[in-house]
Amino acid sequence: MLTLWDHRFAQRTQRMESSAIRELLKFTENPDVISFAGGMPAPEVFPIEKFKEACLTVLDQNGPASLQYGSTDGYAPLREMIARYSARYGINVTIDNILITSGSQQALDLLGKILINPGDGVLVESPTYVGALQAWRAYGAEFVPVPTDEDGMMTSKLESCLRAGPKFIYALPNFQNPTGSTLAYDRRLKLIELAENYGVPIVEDDPYGQLRFEGENLPAIEVLDSQTRAQEECYSGNVIYLSTFSKTLAPGIRLAWVIAPPPVITKLIQAKQGTDLHTSTFNQMVAYEVAKDGFLYEHAKLIRKVYKERRDVMLDTLSEYMPEGVSWTHPKGGLFLWVTLPECLNSQDLFKDAVAEKVAFVPGDSFYAEGGGFNTMRLNFSNACPERINEGIFRLANVLKKHLVANS
Amino acid sequence: MLTLWDHRFAQRTQRMESSAIRELLKFTENPDVISFAGGMPAPEVFPIEKFKEACLTVLDQNGPASLQYGSTDGYAPLREMIARYSARYGINVTIDNILITSGSQQALDLLGKILINPGDGVLVESPTYVGALQAWRAYGAEFVPVPTDEDGMMTSKLESCLRAGPKFIYALPNFQNPTGSTLAYDRRLKLIELAENYGVPIVEDDPYGQLRFEGENLPAIEVLDSQTRAQEECYSGNVIYLSTFSKTLAPGIRLAWVIAPPPVITKLIQAKQGTDLHTSTFNQMVAYEVAKDGFLYEHAKLIRKVYKERRDVMLDTLSEYMPEGVSWTHPKGGLFLWVTLPECLNSQDLFKDAVAEKVAFVPGDSFYAEGGGFNTMRLNFSNACPERINEGIFRLANVLKKHLVANS
Repeated sequence: MLTLWDHRFAQRTQRMESSAIRELLKFTENPDVISFAGGMPAPEVFPIEKFKEACLTVLDQNGPASLQYGSTDGYAPLREMIARYSARYGINVTIDNILITSGSQQALDLLGKILINPGDGVLVESPTYVGALQAWRAYGAEFVPVPTDEDGMMTSKLESCLRAGPKFIYALPNFQNPTGSTLAYDRRLKLIELAENYGVPIVEDDPYGQLRFEGENLPAIEVLDSQTRAQEECYSGNVIYLSTFSKTLAPGIRLAWVIAPPPVITKLIQAKQGTDLHTSTFNQMVAYEVAKDGFLYEHAKLIRKVYKERRDVMLDTLSEYMPEGVSWTHPKGGLFLWVTLPECLNSQDLFKDAVAEKVAFVPGDSFYAEGGGFNTMRLNFSNACPERINEGIFRLANVLKKHLVANS
Repeated sequence: MLTLWDHRFAQRTQRMESSAIRELLKFTENPDVISFAGGMPAPEVFPIEKFKEACLTVLDQNGPASLQYGSTDGYAPLREMIARYSARYGINVTIDNILITSGSQQALDLLGKILINPGDGVLVESPTYVGALQAWRAYGAEFVPVPTDEDGMMTSKLESCLRAGPKFIYALPNFQNPTGSTLAYDRRLKLIELAENYGVPIVEDDPYGQLRFEGENLPAIEVLDSQTRAQEECYSGNVIYLSTFSKTLAPGIRLAWVIAPPPVITKLIQAKQGTDLHTSTFNQMVAYEVAKDGFLYEHAKLIRKVYKERRDVMLDTLSEYMPEGVSWTHPKGGLFLWVTLPECLNSQDLFKDAVAEKVAFVPGDSFYAEGGGFNTMRLNFSNACPERINEGIFRLANVLKKHLVANS
């Protein structure tokens, strides 16, 4: 129904649509549906007792300050802790390089706000995180997709894309959302070299870096980039690095951070002032209290153990139940794997029948900035317990087989 | 220092600047400074024990859900509670009319995102809330100021402004930020009538409505507008109403809400998905737990009592210490009053000396979309205790007297 309001909405809203993933979350509310949609952590690993203690400590020791307005850049002790935490991974920064955001989604939005003029190109992996596409479409971005394979962004195809003059490169180097693939070491170096040559900055989104189940951690693009620079060039570092507490602590507190050169942080703070003033003081203090004594390192071990088991169950059951012609990635960490169906199948069509059979996933097409990917799907393995993963993949394979028969 | 980054920032960032108020908050960190800047609630009235109970209850009864991702529109029981709460003030809506936001500042940002094309006019009171100007400048708004007096927006001047074709009217009807003035009843009716005639919607920002110390509550513009409509016209209601828990509960949890016709809510949800996915699940559940049994009604009585006392002290000490030629408003509620100095004085100049004398305020010019107001200042009376208000106004009057002498 057209209403009086429709003609009032801004032009940019014509490019706004509900994210398929967010819409799908409502299917996960029915506990009968085994959902591989969404990107939700395992609720079993949330450190609830730690949160209880932390809430009481914060309210006892810092009650008035925790409930009061705070500064836009974020709670200083939390930013100091993030600086120490980052140093363990080779990222050497001070609190002046760190801004606290209300989840990484806000970091993506703020980066769009400060960097994207309507019509600006943004170089993205194909496929890529749909939330980034959604955030930047609102600012009029035009996406320049770079193909990916099992080793992540195909840097051999990068140079021709860079000639299009994109405003920045968006890279998800570790256990990428949606494919689960990891950017190979030599490709990281190539990406940095080309970005530097073309004067194009890199936005490195790393929500899953601490969730590697096997193999060696690879250095962050941020780390490799800074190794190419002299100390005094810290103002011209070419990488904006994003990470979050959503996957190692809890997403419900909406806490993430940006690491960037000070001129970028200054501009992000200005943008954030007008966007939400600041991120919840209380949540920042509680997260600091939970995490300050190294809890995240220990807790990440538990998460890795749980997620590895779930990934293994999903890989095993995919092998066991899926018909020939279906393939999938073997992520070494993170929350997702990526399934490619025979070309004759359409995952949107499949989705409706899957939900009827009480199993859900995300059809892959929404992750492609340029369209396509109709025979792909993203499966999340972090949220469901092993028994439900087994049952869910069994159901999904059956739906798929029916569609294959109908198409043959 | 110009850096490599400067040429990369989007055009809209050229209109972005740090809010004077936010910058001033850093002065308030020095406990020796008596700050009438900022808009901070009295920390003494934060219901810390209620929060402790609520955090434990939420984590005990709903731990995993409270720490998990949630839906973009907000926690349904909280939205239901807001619907019940609003009904007490004559606003009759369902949860489909309500979106939870990360503070009212986010509501302003999202409204800018969905309504403002670059160059669109936005009709604002002069002076008005600086955070709204900041939020909407980022979307390219051009402001159309309407003069105000002690009865709020001068609706006699409204029609000529409406002929400029603004996208919407921004009104702060109760104890306006910054002046503390309240829009008179007959002006509310006139505003609604003219807005309807010109087909221009009204954004009604009401953070302080529950904080009236004296006189009768006036009906919200939202209420008066809906009284002019038949039931079936609910989709075409002309008012978007904003309120918040920041002033009646605590700002540090960043929780506010929008009440609007469903087509607006739908568009706001799409915009919010790309902006921060959703507002903290944990904070929404905790606020619901604190407030669900009518706590806000009782608590608002306490806040009104404390703030009325502080306002009275500020009015009394202004009368006692201020030299001739200085005038101020007599707000019947809220957090602020507005001081007008002799034309020869500049409040920016005054500010530097005031901080040296350990008292702070907000120079008034930043509240004027069109510039000007250099002889005005905003004083907050909610945050400091009576003794400090007395001492602070004494210090401020002395600084002012010195400037008067220097100018004579």
